Amino acid sequence: MRIAVIGAGALGLYYGAMLRRAGRDVRFLLRRDYEAVRRRGLTVTSPAGDFHLERVRGFRSPAEMGEVDLVLVGLKTFANDRLVDLVRPLLGKRTAVLTLQNGLGNEELLAEAIGADRVLGGVAFLCSNRGEPGTVHHLGQGSIRLGEYAGGLTERAAAIAAMFTAAGVPCEAVADLAKIRWEKLVWNIPFNGLCALTGADVTALLTHPPSRELVREIMAEVVAGANARDLSEPIAGEAFIARMLELTDGMDHYRPSMMIDRLEGRPLELEAIYGIPLRMAAGHGVEMTRTRMLHALLALGEPK
Amino acid sequence: MRIAVIGAGALGLYYGAMLRRAGRDVRFLLRRDYEAVRRRGLTVTSPAGDFHLERVRGFRSPAEMGEVDLVLVGLKTFANDRLVDLVRPLLGKRTAVLTLQNGLGNEELLAEAIGADRVLGGVAFLCSNRGEPGTVHHLGQGSIRLGEYAGGLTERAAAIAAMFTAAGVPCEAVADLAKIRWEKLVWNIPFNGLCALTGADVTALLTHPPSRELVREIMAEVVAGANARDLSEPIAGEAFIARMLELTDGMDHYRPSMMIDRLEGRPLELEAIYGIPLRMAAGHGVEMTRTRMLHALLALGEPK
Repeated sequence: MRIAVIGAGALGLYYGAMLRRAGRDVRFLLRRDYEAVRRRGLTVTSPAGDFHLERVRGFRSPAEMGEVDLVLVGLKTFANDRLVDLVRPLLGKRTAVLTLQNGLGNEELLAEAIGADRVLGGVAFLCSNRGEPGTVHHLGQGSIRLGEYAGGLTERAAAIAAMFTAAGVPCEAVADLAKIRWEKLVWNIPFNGLCALTGADVTALLTHPPSRELVREIMAEVVAGANARDLSEPIAGEAFIARMLELTDGMDHYRPSMMIDRLEGRPLELEAIYGIPLRMAAGHGVEMTRTRMLHALLALGEPK
Repeated sequence: MRIAVIGAGALGLYYGAMLRRAGRDVRFLLRRDYEAVRRRGLTVTSPAGDFHLERVRGFRSPAEMGEVDLVLVGLKTFANDRLVDLVRPLLGKRTAVLTLQNGLGNEELLAEAIGADRVLGGVAFLCSNRGEPGTVHHLGQGSIRLGEYAGGLTERAAAIAAMFTAAGVPCEAVADLAKIRWEKLVWNIPFNGLCALTGADVTALLTHPPSRELVREIMAEVVAGANARDLSEPIAGEAFIARMLELTDGMDHYRPSMMIDRLEGRPLELEAIYGIPLRMAAGHGVEMTRTRMLHALLALGEPK
């Protein structure tokens, strides 16, 4: 299976490297890391053991990459105006496109342009950061849940999940993509935004009782927004929230991607993580008060 | 009338200087400004005209200041554990104490220690900042509304108000101190906190539509909290909020005191402006959701 990785940041580089290590034909679209990867290959540091890939296929433009069987999208959503143009040259007759991007709206964008039947979406529970060019730091976790944009469990989705799992990335195919997208938002909406806004990491948030309570309240808003939709089954609010908090208690001083984006002066993924979910929830009659406040405060700090 | 100013920051220095200029016997308790004031007096810059006071009575401790007729309190509320000890040496038989401090709880603290009949409270609509030692910058406005802690309109309150007004500080005595305290909170709770949290000034907040809307929503929460109390008459929410927004639209890039406190690494007046009002409103069955979120985020950034 030929695989293209579009948007090779901390997420794309890590998953691409895991698949490459497992012997897959992985082609990376690179910008910042191009020279380093061509010269020295790709290094992954990880609590599960560091590894180095000597020969890695890096490209500067999708036109050079050829048709592939699977496109893995890790692009930051604020660059989504380029997404379709980046993906189109890679498409053969049966190419599937799996977006692991944050938030909502990414599958819709792809489906509109290339057809809903090509599109899968997934959520990654991955703690990783970019290092020097040619190096990515895997800090912990890494599992993926994915599903068809059109819904239902397909052989294709099961095969992709099996490929990831065989490569050391625990991956599960599910029938209800909307549900796993919203479940991921239960984590992303409080932690990404509060950390980016305040400069506090997840541990600082969770060890300060009033902000821990705030995280919990925001999570409850997102669960209410999710459950107002027609999910296959509702998110079990209290239990799910308790599990997310416990999981995050184990992430020692982790800094979410949005916090790093702000610290490094990049735009934030506000539309995918806040704007679209807020509008969807409001469309179902759910007003996410604290989430809207957080969105307003984050937007205030964005470059005009 | 002998007047002592306790807590001679941007507010205490300005009002004290205005009264001194009008010929009153004003005695300042000074720390940072002591040497400069003793040597060169006190300078006020103001759009209404700068002025300089050559001879100003500055003291290092309240014990040296003697008994006075009126104590004017401008102390930051985070220093309230020292308030009673600073005031007590100044008290004669009929000394009145007027606190112009921010937020709630200050009159209660004084009344408990020195008797409710001595205590008045007031709110200042003043834009001022400290400059070099011995200099205070009056940026705009400056009017005061004050009232008896025990309630009702007294001759004493009217006399103090007349004294301020004669000195160029428009001042009105009112019967319902609680109402004017809460009216001030309608401004302080959104602007002080949001500016301190985000580093944006009032103009940046009000020209960004989502944060302008957030300011309006927080103001509505405070009005609801106020009107749940037994005020002489309720705050006219919508009209009052519109007036506060209009007033603030005229404050070109003003930075509220709490924003400056944070920028300069001082503690914030969180208990007086957030903690006590939140508890009071909750005690009357009003949950101020956005205000509580703002309080949590501000507290997160405080030194442990």
